[in-house]
Amino acid sequence: MSKKNTNDMIIIALDAMGGDHGPDVTVSAAVHILQRHPDLKLILVGDSNILESAVSEEGGSVSDRLVVEHASEVVEMTDLPSHALRKKKDSSMRVAINLVKDGVAHACVSAGNTGALMATARFVLKTLPGIDRPAICTALPTISGHTHVLDLGANVDSSAEHLLEFAVMGSVLTSAVDDNPNPTVGLLNIGEEEIKGNERVKEAARLFNECNLNYVGFIEGDGIYMNPADVVVCDGFIGNVMLKASEGVAKMFGAYLKKEFKRNIFTRLSALAAYPVLKAFKKRLDPRSYNGASLLGLNGIVVKSHGGADAYAFGKAILEAREEVIKDVPNQIRRKLESQLEIAKEEQ
Amino acid sequence: MSKKNTNDMIIIALDAMGGDHGPDVTVSAAVHILQRHPDLKLILVGDSNILESAVSEEGGSVSDRLVVEHASEVVEMTDLPSHALRKKKDSSMRVAINLVKDGVAHACVSAGNTGALMATARFVLKTLPGIDRPAICTALPTISGHTHVLDLGANVDSSAEHLLEFAVMGSVLTSAVDDNPNPTVGLLNIGEEEIKGNERVKEAARLFNECNLNYVGFIEGDGIYMNPADVVVCDGFIGNVMLKASEGVAKMFGAYLKKEFKRNIFTRLSALAAYPVLKAFKKRLDPRSYNGASLLGLNGIVVKSHGGADAYAFGKAILEAREEVIKDVPNQIRRKLESQLEIAKEEQ
Repeated sequence: MSKKNTNDMIIIALDAMGGDHGPDVTVSAAVHILQRHPDLKLILVGDSNILESAVSEEGGSVSDRLVVEHASEVVEMTDLPSHALRKKKDSSMRVAINLVKDGVAHACVSAGNTGALMATARFVLKTLPGIDRPAICTALPTISGHTHVLDLGANVDSSAEHLLEFAVMGSVLTSAVDDNPNPTVGLLNIGEEEIKGNERVKEAARLFNECNLNYVGFIEGDGIYMNPADVVVCDGFIGNVMLKASEGVAKMFGAYLKKEFKRNIFTRLSALAAYPVLKAFKKRLDPRSYNGASLLGLNGIVVKSHGGADAYAFGKAILEAREEVIKDVPNQIRRKLESQLEIAKEEQ
Repeated sequence: MSKKNTNDMIIIALDAMGGDHGPDVTVSAAVHILQRHPDLKLILVGDSNILESAVSEEGGSVSDRLVVEHASEVVEMTDLPSHALRKKKDSSMRVAINLVKDGVAHACVSAGNTGALMATARFVLKTLPGIDRPAICTALPTISGHTHVLDLGANVDSSAEHLLEFAVMGSVLTSAVDDNPNPTVGLLNIGEEEIKGNERVKEAARLFNECNLNYVGFIEGDGIYMNPADVVVCDGFIGNVMLKASEGVAKMFGAYLKKEFKRNIFTRLSALAAYPVLKAFKKRLDPRSYNGASLLGLNGIVVKSHGGADAYAFGKAILEAREEVIKDVPNQIRRKLESQLEIAKEEQ
């Protein structure tokens, strides 16, 4: 179901049982977001006993836009994707995705098991024509804004052709959510020179140059954060390691800064003096603000929240889904792929 | 040449022209290190006019342990490794490596072009028996110490067998320089579960388990900085992206922190109050302290300094080379490989 009319309500299904905290986070986030966005209606999918009592407690004035859809099972973080797919057909995750397929919801959001979410979404919604492999894409902060990076772990050993699919999808998403008509696209590599890298990256660079992408060349790991391109493309193994290593450095930095400020009474006083600065700094790079990764290349909108997300972060993931509904991202990707295909045909 | 007697002088050849700053950095670093380490003798390789005048100016009391070896060419950062190897046979880099091969020096250090250094070192010194691919290894800070990571960019598309070579070499280096008799070894992957990752990583895990390595399993990108293993093994493409992305995050953090403290007069005052803390924090994570990556798997000791290193950082790379000479790292790797081979034979 695509949202044709701007007066229509936007309906998003939430896997209310997913993530480390389940309904404790998802229900609060839903209420908070509904209070701020009157164009939204949210469907909480999961154990109806738990969810209905949570809604009657917390729902207040937005209860009429917060409905519950029962699902009897929950996909665990430790479940294999194949197990979730075959054995948990009434999981909150699966039912939320089914609601998108059946046209009841425009999008769904889950903080559950990433592998299971990708496998289930791919099975239920199918990929768009011309897409061989869906990819996971998220925005990361940079020195002067943000950049969209994909794939972040849906695929390993991506071919040059897969990297091209990722580039097209990332480019469409960025164009849509950032109102950027011609986003620049970079390719992650171990050097900026043309001779560097492995064969797949070199071949991908050749393909990127031939397409109507705004391709700006190779980008090194440190370059991602220097804002050299609006979209950065890489294989999912590399993207996943890169993303998590970046999170690891950020955590280590935070831990050391805290430790140094807690060293003695003088450093504690200086922390007090520096508090407004440290708070502004933390806010600017708050990973919660960047929560909400898009599963791109599917016949429908699916957004993955971080498993450990709190209500603020889960709310950000809901807003990412809302934005993609408004901009009709899957159909934009479909059209972009069709026009690429026509260009390729004309050239033959 | 290996250092047999603890009373022998340790002789290290420096590519004095390499790096972004050349002799401005290398000569100062050499003098500084010689003042603190009476067991060292350093050979400055490069333009003898420039170097001899620098030594007569700066050498002072350590001039007798600071000699110059002339080399007429310099490998540029933009030179292709093949060009450096074939056309610049009298480069400061090549001559420094030759001194190791000829037994005049125990080790060499260069801040020059990494690709050219690896290609030249491999051509001149050859790899150790049983080593198919040399690797680049460095220590990275973690939440509670440091960890050695390899490969950081010498190889792309490493096979499971190559990853095993890296594990053995990294394990020996860590054991030697950290006086750690049985370092733990982790394998970088996109999840900690056995089913995650690509085929090469899964096969490598099988090989690691069969060997007498202290293998502790898969490590994710954020885990590197949480100190889960003394050695972390990965393909060079992934290691390079991971390392540079980590540097990028660190740079971005530093830039934002500076910006927030400079925002207005109040934040500037609070920066003054927080100065001792910020200084301690910076020192703890100072990348200069971790300068000096080892080219492992060669018949000789070669240490790569960061191209932009200052004298303090370049000195750290010299000390890394000194430590590897004292611990006779290449011979330790050779012996470890021989014992691995014997175990494999016995099992057959």
